[in-house]
Amino acid sequence: MPGRKLRVLPLGGLGEIGKNMTVVEYDGRIVVVDTGLMFPTAEMLGIDLVLPDFSYLRERAEDIEAIVLTHGHEDHVGALPYVLREIGSPPVIYGGLLTIGMVRAKLDEHKLKNAPLQELPAGDKVQLGPFELELVHLSHSIPDARGVLLTTEVGTMLMTGDYKFDQTPVDGRPADISRLAEVGRDGLLLLCGDSTNADRPGVAPSESSVGPALLETFSNCQGRIIVTSFASNIHRVQQVIDAAVKLDRRVALVGRSMRKNFNIASNLGIANAPSGLFIQPREIENFPDEKVVVISTGSQGEPLSALRRMANNDHRDVELHSGDTVVFSATPVPGNERAVNETIDRIYEIGASVVTAKQAPIHASGHGWQEELKLMLNLTKPRYVLPVHGDHQRLRLHAELAESVGVAPENIFQGRNGLPLELDENGATFGEDIHAGVIFVDGVNVGEPDDVALRDRREISADGIFIVVATISSDDGQVVADPEVLFRGVAFLEEAGALVEELKDVVEDSLEDAANAGTRELHLVQEDLHDAVAGLVYKKLHRRPMIIPVVVEV
Amino acid sequence: MPGRKLRVLPLGGLGEIGKNMTVVEYDGRIVVVDTGLMFPTAEMLGIDLVLPDFSYLRERAEDIEAIVLTHGHEDHVGALPYVLREIGSPPVIYGGLLTIGMVRAKLDEHKLKNAPLQELPAGDKVQLGPFELELVHLSHSIPDARGVLLTTEVGTMLMTGDYKFDQTPVDGRPADISRLAEVGRDGLLLLCGDSTNADRPGVAPSESSVGPALLETFSNCQGRIIVTSFASNIHRVQQVIDAAVKLDRRVALVGRSMRKNFNIASNLGIANAPSGLFIQPREIENFPDEKVVVISTGSQGEPLSALRRMANNDHRDVELHSGDTVVFSATPVPGNERAVNETIDRIYEIGASVVTAKQAPIHASGHGWQEELKLMLNLTKPRYVLPVHGDHQRLRLHAELAESVGVAPENIFQGRNGLPLELDENGATFGEDIHAGVIFVDGVNVGEPDDVALRDRREISADGIFIVVATISSDDGQVVADPEVLFRGVAFLEEAGALVEELKDVVEDSLEDAANAGTRELHLVQEDLHDAVAGLVYKKLHRRPMIIPVVVEV
Repeated sequence: MPGRKLRVLPLGGLGEIGKNMTVVEYDGRIVVVDTGLMFPTAEMLGIDLVLPDFSYLRERAEDIEAIVLTHGHEDHVGALPYVLREIGSPPVIYGGLLTIGMVRAKLDEHKLKNAPLQELPAGDKVQLGPFELELVHLSHSIPDARGVLLTTEVGTMLMTGDYKFDQTPVDGRPADISRLAEVGRDGLLLLCGDSTNADRPGVAPSESSVGPALLETFSNCQGRIIVTSFASNIHRVQQVIDAAVKLDRRVALVGRSMRKNFNIASNLGIANAPSGLFIQPREIENFPDEKVVVISTGSQGEPLSALRRMANNDHRDVELHSGDTVVFSATPVPGNERAVNETIDRIYEIGASVVTAKQAPIHASGHGWQEELKLMLNLTKPRYVLPVHGDHQRLRLHAELAESVGVAPENIFQGRNGLPLELDENGATFGEDIHAGVIFVDGVNVGEPDDVALRDRREISADGIFIVVATISSDDGQVVADPEVLFRGVAFLEEAGALVEELKDVVEDSLEDAANAGTRELHLVQEDLHDAVAGLVYKKLHRRPMIIPVVVEV
Repeated sequence: MPGRKLRVLPLGGLGEIGKNMTVVEYDGRIVVVDTGLMFPTAEMLGIDLVLPDFSYLRERAEDIEAIVLTHGHEDHVGALPYVLREIGSPPVIYGGLLTIGMVRAKLDEHKLKNAPLQELPAGDKVQLGPFELELVHLSHSIPDARGVLLTTEVGTMLMTGDYKFDQTPVDGRPADISRLAEVGRDGLLLLCGDSTNADRPGVAPSESSVGPALLETFSNCQGRIIVTSFASNIHRVQQVIDAAVKLDRRVALVGRSMRKNFNIASNLGIANAPSGLFIQPREIENFPDEKVVVISTGSQGEPLSALRRMANNDHRDVELHSGDTVVFSATPVPGNERAVNETIDRIYEIGASVVTAKQAPIHASGHGWQEELKLMLNLTKPRYVLPVHGDHQRLRLHAELAESVGVAPENIFQGRNGLPLELDENGATFGEDIHAGVIFVDGVNVGEPDDVALRDRREISADGIFIVVATISSDDGQVVADPEVLFRGVAFLEEAGALVEELKDVVEDSLEDAANAGTRELHLVQEDLHDAVAGLVYKKLHRRPMIIPVVVEV
């Protein structure tokens, strides 16, 4: 460990979109920026959540000065309960007002009520061992997004978190470009910048451009309006509410996270609605269709979400019908396209109408586009650049943007998870790679990815499983009870069922052969049994289900 | 069965994209138009292919006059081997030249060499019982696409198959709009039209616009060029070849279907390349990078495709490296976005460059956009319209297009699979719904979807499986051998392993209770055992794996 180098170790978020987490070290002390999670892909059968492997922090728990959270999205804060439970609480957890509010609710649910959460107002400075910490106000698709400035003896670094330069944000508080310019004038050592939209030329539309488009869309609707968006996008929800008020419609919030996030934001004064505007989901049917706006979770087609249930005619309170209009004020996150399309198509099947961001400008991304990434680079004039928050493609494109505004190519680093960047006055180089794996959350269990279990799940889910139970005498290995053959998940039950009697014969033959050959080691008997059964199953079904032979000696 | 009604029964392709198959009946006789398949979604664990349920045809096999294929894509011909194997061959199978060539190769692979395949030149008429059949030349992303005209006493219907109105197709043979206009003048009873791009305003770009864009893209490449596209898009492959020739690069075809389809097309005179142009994949490394174009399968990110293997550094002949450019001359089919994005990102990780249709106009859809669907409607002036080939959204949008060009709303039908449209001189109405399910292909097995097997696969793939084997005396139900507890696919093996001894105790307790209570029915003993084991597993792991109790009496 070089004592006097600044060490920036990304544990997640590089070469992927999600589970952002970065360890910043100086002089043996640590600040952790963000503790995000990722949602599993379809191949991760049965896995609920994917976390960055934070075992590096386990041994260093004593050295952690603070955890700093840039904003309240799951890919930046979702792993926090697991981190706290595993390594204990650091002395303090900092973030913006809404971030802290949302995280407090999350930790309460995880029964971690005493975590040392503390709002740090943007612009305030706090000393954390060898680090001076300051948060910089930025804009994003959730209020209270902050960049993280960490200053040590070797210089200042900025982790942007997710950001855009929205010149007309809904809350009237644009990103603090003045402070960023000051940082640039004073000399920034390292910029770790969000790369999510490094592939999009131009500037992202302002969040406040969405409100008028929603109002116009709503104005054309005769029946009920169901709007779906991310529940954490408080300003979006606010704009839907404002449009509903203008059109004299009542509003129902549907979906647990929609109600929860609005309540948190409302209690903090970040969102508001005229009294009497809200109706309960169960009251919707009591109001004329043209007097109702439903704001619902499910913009990503999530299987258990309120909107998906409505589309499946399976929601307790809201039954979609012809004349309704479902407004998708969101775009599918990459990988969710199929689920979103399926949801949309079910809505069409019911006879309701759908409006998406393809038909009207009713969505604005929360991540800056290319011109905004360049603006950040030009404002802060970093000596070194490490693009973060992006797959390999976007990291590369962000690096090209940095080069295009004049950062020296040798000062731009293409990083990856587990590869620390080490900096001092003399330069910056990658240090020694550490293992940067993932942790799976499967129910309440948290642990290393269990390759064997996943491989078994995949094998069984492809072709099913046969279980063969044989009972033999411990004296002479002779069969003493009829073998049992069971199967699960084997397609074409009929053929499989017809196989069972044949398999029993094969089992008895195999055991008899073993007994006659004097084979008494159980594992050898089981191997023979496995091969005999697998052979016949393949011959008959042309499939290779998992075969589990169990030999019991009595 | 109304004897003198034309009956159009879609078995697939409505409310979905894929497995197009339509049964046309008149006077007790049948013509089947297309026999397509669909690829399974991620939830269909272990399923290889999805076919329309064609059991309706099984009982009517004797009545089938012919199968007519509009073009050679899998979603229009892929189920043919399964149909032929199940219901036998009809007297004749018609299609265009390339369609027949590709289907012949497919049936050969399925060892169905004697199927009565016959090319029917566009414009030729043939009598099939009460039907007169004529194919109309159209353009699509595969050569020799044809619309199907079927004339009976009650009038003429047109199944378009997939089509676009490409005014400058690569082969110089635009859709036969003159014949379509004639059909319209003579009076068309029913149009069943492709709805795939009913959501896209305007006109699809011409296939021949792709060639110059490819040439320009290639001109900017210094190193090797790897182009990926659909292997069946012969004109696209031809244009890649032409660009390679102009740039004095040699060409390697990589991927089985790429070589197979090009050979078929080449033998039929539909594709051509200067002699000496092609090199073998294993020779690629012998040529300078700037002298090579690789044309590869894998444009959809298919896990086993040549391109995916290259991206995984796992291809026998082609090792991607920095300086290479991979050109995606295709867009992801809905649902494949994640696989395509993953492939692209791995290529970026290797350091190679990627060009997609977002950066350059190097792809053109094979399906007509809104203005083309309207042109088809205006040319053929159908009395009735049944939009086909599309999810519910696109069927609805196509219906709206029909209304916009003046088709009477009551003459436009929103159909679904299994719902026959019945027509005669007096009108058209939907007939009686038949069951229109799906057939799964799982290895060599073909059958009804097996809900139990799939449910079991899902259950096991989510949480794994515990198998508990107990051996009791047939005399008194007392335990006579140590219970066996096995598990597979259970995450966090350690915790599960630690459970095994506890579970054995639970098993023995449960059996003892049963014995003491005099419970001797095996299924009751097993139920108790199941519940006891499931209870402890849930308490310890907070998961609900499948529990299989096996009780053996000796």
